[in-house]
Amino acid sequence: MAKQPLVTLLTDFGTADPYVAAMKGVILRACPSAKIVDISHDVPPQDVTAAALVLAQAAPYFPSDTLHVVVVDPTVGTDRRILVGRFAEQLFLFPDNGVITFVAQTMAMQTLAVVRAAEYAADTSASMTFHGRDLFAPLAGQILNGLEIARLGPQPSTYKTLELPRPVDQGNCLVGQVIYADRFGNLISNIPAEAIRRRWPDTGRLIVRCAGQDVGQLHGTYAQAPEGSALALFNSMGLLEVAVNRGSAARRLSAGVGSEVIVMEAPRGGR
Amino acid sequence: MAKQPLVTLLTDFGTADPYVAAMKGVILRACPSAKIVDISHDVPPQDVTAAALVLAQAAPYFPSDTLHVVVVDPTVGTDRRILVGRFAEQLFLFPDNGVITFVAQTMAMQTLAVVRAAEYAADTSASMTFHGRDLFAPLAGQILNGLEIARLGPQPSTYKTLELPRPVDQGNCLVGQVIYADRFGNLISNIPAEAIRRRWPDTGRLIVRCAGQDVGQLHGTYAQAPEGSALALFNSMGLLEVAVNRGSAARRLSAGVGSEVIVMEAPRGGR
Amino acid sequence: MAKQPLVTLLTDFGTADPYVAAMKGVILRACPSAKIVDISHDVPPQDVTAAALVLAQAAPYFPSDTLHVVVVDPTVGTDRRILVGRFAEQLFLFPDNGVITFVAQTMAMQTLAVVRAAEYAADTSASMTFHGRDLFAPLAGQILNGLEIARLGPQPSTYKTLELPRPVDQGNCLVGQVIYADRFGNLISNIPAEAIRRRWPDTGRLIVRCAGQDVGQLHGTYAQAPEGSALALFNSMGLLEVAVNRGSAARRLSAGVGSEVIVMEAPRGGR
Repeated sequence: MAKQPLVTLLTDFGTADPYVAAMKGVILRACPSAKIVDISHDVPPQDVTAAALVLAQAAPYFPSDTLHVVVVDPTVGTDRRILVGRFAEQLFLFPDNGVITFVAQTMAMQTLAVVRAAEYAADTSASMTFHGRDLFAPLAGQILNGLEIARLGPQPSTYKTLELPRPVDQGNCLVGQVIYADRFGNLISNIPAEAIRRRWPDTGRLIVRCAGQDVGQLHGTYAQAPEGSALALFNSMGLLEVAVNRGSAARRLSAGVGSEVIVMEAPRGGR
Repeated sequence: MAKQPLVTLLTDFGTADPYVAAMKGVILRACPSAKIVDISHDVPPQDVTAAALVLAQAAPYFPSDTLHVVVVDPTVGTDRRILVGRFAEQLFLFPDNGVITFVAQTMAMQTLAVVRAAEYAADTSASMTFHGRDLFAPLAGQILNGLEIARLGPQPSTYKTLELPRPVDQGNCLVGQVIYADRFGNLISNIPAEAIRRRWPDTGRLIVRCAGQDVGQLHGTYAQAPEGSALALFNSMGLLEVAVNRGSAARRLSAGVGSEVIVMEAPRGGR
Repeated sequence: MAKQPLVTLLTDFGTADPYVAAMKGVILRACPSAKIVDISHDVPPQDVTAAALVLAQAAPYFPSDTLHVVVVDPTVGTDRRILVGRFAEQLFLFPDNGVITFVAQTMAMQTLAVVRAAEYAADTSASMTFHGRDLFAPLAGQILNGLEIARLGPQPSTYKTLELPRPVDQGNCLVGQVIYADRFGNLISNIPAEAIRRRWPDTGRLIVRCAGQDVGQLHGTYAQAPEGSALALFNSMGLLEVAVNRGSAARRLSAGVGSEVIVMEAPRGGR
């Protein structure tokens, strides 16, 4: 890599404690020219699903050859594997716990390797309670320095993906649920746009309900709904999202992760 | 720009969601050598006044030619304009919603242009619900790469400024209010130092009240008041501020944005 | 310094206000090539002990010649001194309030100087209420530009260290307390591993209690305890720590800073 190596970090470490900074120190010690960008450190502790969604919404926008390091890792200390892979033009270093799920759905996998972790630990005598600092960060430094990911270990036969609750077809409607709520109160559901389009090629007659309340028809953008009104749209991940134009759907609908989202045909005619 | 391009970001996106990182990815894709500094992403959602105050207290300290990108933008999706301008030695890219108010009061405007937004959107087929990523970030990349801001669009005849509540002269006192409270509980009012000096050339006899409580005379620094005591001073923005030396004025006075601040002459003599 | 100058910041300024960004602007104005890394800005306001612990857990991992700037400074405005020193291979600029305590215990001091602050203020006419921006940041810029720290001022005869509560030997047990709780609810005590090893060379028979509850024997890593179980271990700072494997000891034990931690020999035999 002739250009300045670029690495992002996505953790659930928060920003009050020294953990993120220690990782950055280790990375810069290994690769002083690295540019480090935070994706987020405020993923809810040990919430792999949230991390997977955040990763898939941020990573695709980075330059090619960016290395994305994910340390949302509730199974640290077990024999869970650490994987490194190239998806589309980018590199990912992550625990094999499903956090790659949505990236793998939208960015084509090129290569994947199971890291021989024991060989790459910063200090093999360390207690290894802090893999972010003692394993992920030194590995990141080596990858930024040009180590081929195929040399980090063998190719796995498979890798973990999240088993999200799937929307259920209940005859005249699709029933799903909210899987992520952002700071603005936008509610991302588990219902893929393509599942809706397959079921109802004409989406113009559909209405959406969330947490028991009507949120009207599908729109193209937030601004197509009146200010303060709830609406549904297909977001950039290809998932059905419930929002309020210039407001918070989470607050307005008293909804959050787990709330029910229903898509159905609007009743024809009649009062 | 021969030197490393420098860009700051000021948003209300928070740091838990992927939005800030997506913007950074887009900027680095366009301008890999850019150095990105966060001003803040914790502006209260859609609070243009707070963003305007934060911007004016941070921007002047940056090197010349720094580009400051502001995406606190409650009117995204309406026909609000996007402006780009040079104030003193620095560049600003911002929605025309008044967020430039305090910068414009303290840094001399050199040039200003209305961005022909449609020409610069990252993906004109996009739903454009996320202008930060799809419009501000690509524009920032182009400006960092040297695009002349005068070429981005025509000069506007005017631009929006915030209509803050103005202090009222009530004969023997000036009555204003708190417009910003910081993490330490310092309370910034809407009363300019110069309005006070114009009204009372000798400020030595003035006393200040905040939220119905006496906070004493004007001081030069926090430390001139006894530890734990409330005081008033003129801050670096030239506004009257109420503070507690080594404590929180917000907590001590149970005050916050909107609380009344009164300046008056101390009564003479007495018993 | 031929390589890119590296500086870290550790403050209690939070990330909502413009203060951290203003400091970064001043540093970059003085030293445009500087790379700035945040250690944390979320130290509890004016909590020098927490800052000292965070600093000692992050700084050692950075490259040699990194400059660590600490502005957790409740005595700003008094005659407290500003110190600059080299500990092991790294540089530290900090108020003389004890924040260097744990660094000084683990990294060998090479040089130390009392900054002639008046000479280095950015603006000697300034009110000097914001030393971070007006004094620490310009000083940092000069140090990054290569100014010898020995030239910044005379060597002090001594410097402040924190007087933490010390564990007390009560005959058959050592009684200490929690001095830091992190985001994951791990509880760091004031009991050094070496004090325990000196008292009981065979640590295998020891048990630990925290906030009145049994947390069992000493372990080598979190994962040696069953998932959800409390455990005690010696952490990377050489202090006794109470944790819950994949959970929060703070929540589980309703414990926090100040909670009692007791080490004693397990009772032999019994019924």
